[in-house]
Amino acid sequence: MIIVGEKINSTRKPIAEAIAARDKEHIQKEAQAQSEAGADYIDVNAAAFMEKEAECLQWVIEAVQEATETPLCLDSPDPAVIKKVIPLAKIPPMINSINLEPSRLEALLPLIRDYSATVIGLCQTKEQMGKTVQEKVAIAGRLVEKITAAGIGINSLYIDPLVFPVGTDTKSVSATLDAIEIIMKQFNGVHTICGLTNVSHGLPQRKLINRTLLAEAIARGLDAAILDPTDRQLVSVMRAALMLMGKDEFCMEYIKAFRKGQLE
Amino acid sequence: MIIVGEKINSTRKPIAEAIAARDKEHIQKEAQAQSEAGADYIDVNAAAFMEKEAECLQWVIEAVQEATETPLCLDSPDPAVIKKVIPLAKIPPMINSINLEPSRLEALLPLIRDYSATVIGLCQTKEQMGKTVQEKVAIAGRLVEKITAAGIGINSLYIDPLVFPVGTDTKSVSATLDAIEIIMKQFNGVHTICGLTNVSHGLPQRKLINRTLLAEAIARGLDAAILDPTDRQLVSVMRAALMLMGKDEFCMEYIKAFRKGQLE
Repeated sequence: MIIVGEKINSTRKPIAEAIAARDKEHIQKEAQAQSEAGADYIDVNAAAFMEKEAECLQWVIEAVQEATETPLCLDSPDPAVIKKVIPLAKIPPMINSINLEPSRLEALLPLIRDYSATVIGLCQTKEQMGKTVQEKVAIAGRLVEKITAAGIGINSLYIDPLVFPVGTDTKSVSATLDAIEIIMKQFNGVHTICGLTNVSHGLPQRKLINRTLLAEAIARGLDAAILDPTDRQLVSVMRAALMLMGKDEFCMEYIKAFRKGQLE
Repeated sequence: MIIVGEKINSTRKPIAEAIAARDKEHIQKEAQAQSEAGADYIDVNAAAFMEKEAECLQWVIEAVQEATETPLCLDSPDPAVIKKVIPLAKIPPMINSINLEPSRLEALLPLIRDYSATVIGLCQTKEQMGKTVQEKVAIAGRLVEKITAAGIGINSLYIDPLVFPVGTDTKSVSATLDAIEIIMKQFNGVHTICGLTNVSHGLPQRKLINRTLLAEAIARGLDAAILDPTDRQLVSVMRAALMLMGKDEFCMEYIKAFRKGQLE
């Protein structure tokens, strides 16, 4: 399971404040905590700073890389910002994200190839987001084509089939779960990834819903997630779910987490 | 989701003591609590009393039926005991259980048909338990044949694909999950059911594992379970898992459970 630590995101108020104040210690603590909790990538996002995004993101990247050797996940809506900061990454980063929008693909695919990066591919086109399982799988197939045509290995692609709030459309999440299963079977070597927080929008006990989604998605083949690795209840469910799916040899990761007092 | 309340089982010490002492109040409280918590069937088992099983089970059945109108799940290793007590059931019961053992089928199929009962069918033969996904699905297919040949509707059959401890064989539960999905797709109208406690045998934080299994099995199509409906954390995960699978119209069951203070 590949874990992208989601916490250093400028849409979160404490992070926006820390970036604005150039509070390096705050950012570095968030990075270290996620890294120690098992993050494989640390997402870094400064998009809330608009025209100052590149400058802010550059500062965040330097702060994080001073504090941990965990690779970065460069998260920006603006391909120009990614192009500017990608040379700063000391270890091949993940790019968050591409979709089928042509200008985005044109700008980012060469960077992904040249920097040996991995990339999150959203199941959306310029015009629409993939809602039905057919749309999600069709877009996933086109993302696979684009990636491989650019000379990038399919195993560098993490397809995000998109998760919408279950409270708005009760059938939407089962389409996402079906898509995960089909994508993992149909495109050998590709990864699937998703975020967990959007699903529970507008409903009570959000964390219960988020972590139950993680268990269900793992049961359908999900092998990566964007999440808060310091959320103990969430990580406990993830450890148990992976073990039950036969993805934890001798149950060692589960038992190790228990011994460290991390399971609840 | 069909819930079989598992608590009135003579292998549990407080229940064995209550049956031995003919403590009707204790049994009735267990029945009512499970019924109020949403059980569709109340499992009743007195097998620990050996040669006195029929007599004890008869007493339990009468006690439970005085306290609740929830149907019973008659749970005995001995077909003769089931034959003796089934006329006592005021509402068509569930039988726990059949497998492919010929003498068991011969004794129980006519009763299931004549009493309009439902039945749990274990994925095991006289000689062996289904371990691989192929074995489980093959046995499931033969159970479907036996049931329908006896003039019983396929929707009266709840196939239990068997859950073994993940700590003993880390690949065994993924075989069970695969079997659930294949059985639900292959045999239209059949149900799948499983117990949750066996999976975590020998491991720490057992309830975490048990409830994560429930979420994963629901994600693969499970539509019935033998469980403790008074376990709030377990039922919270069940409610969330069903909602995410699109099986809770307008999220009403989830929200209702939240309003009753049942989610945690």
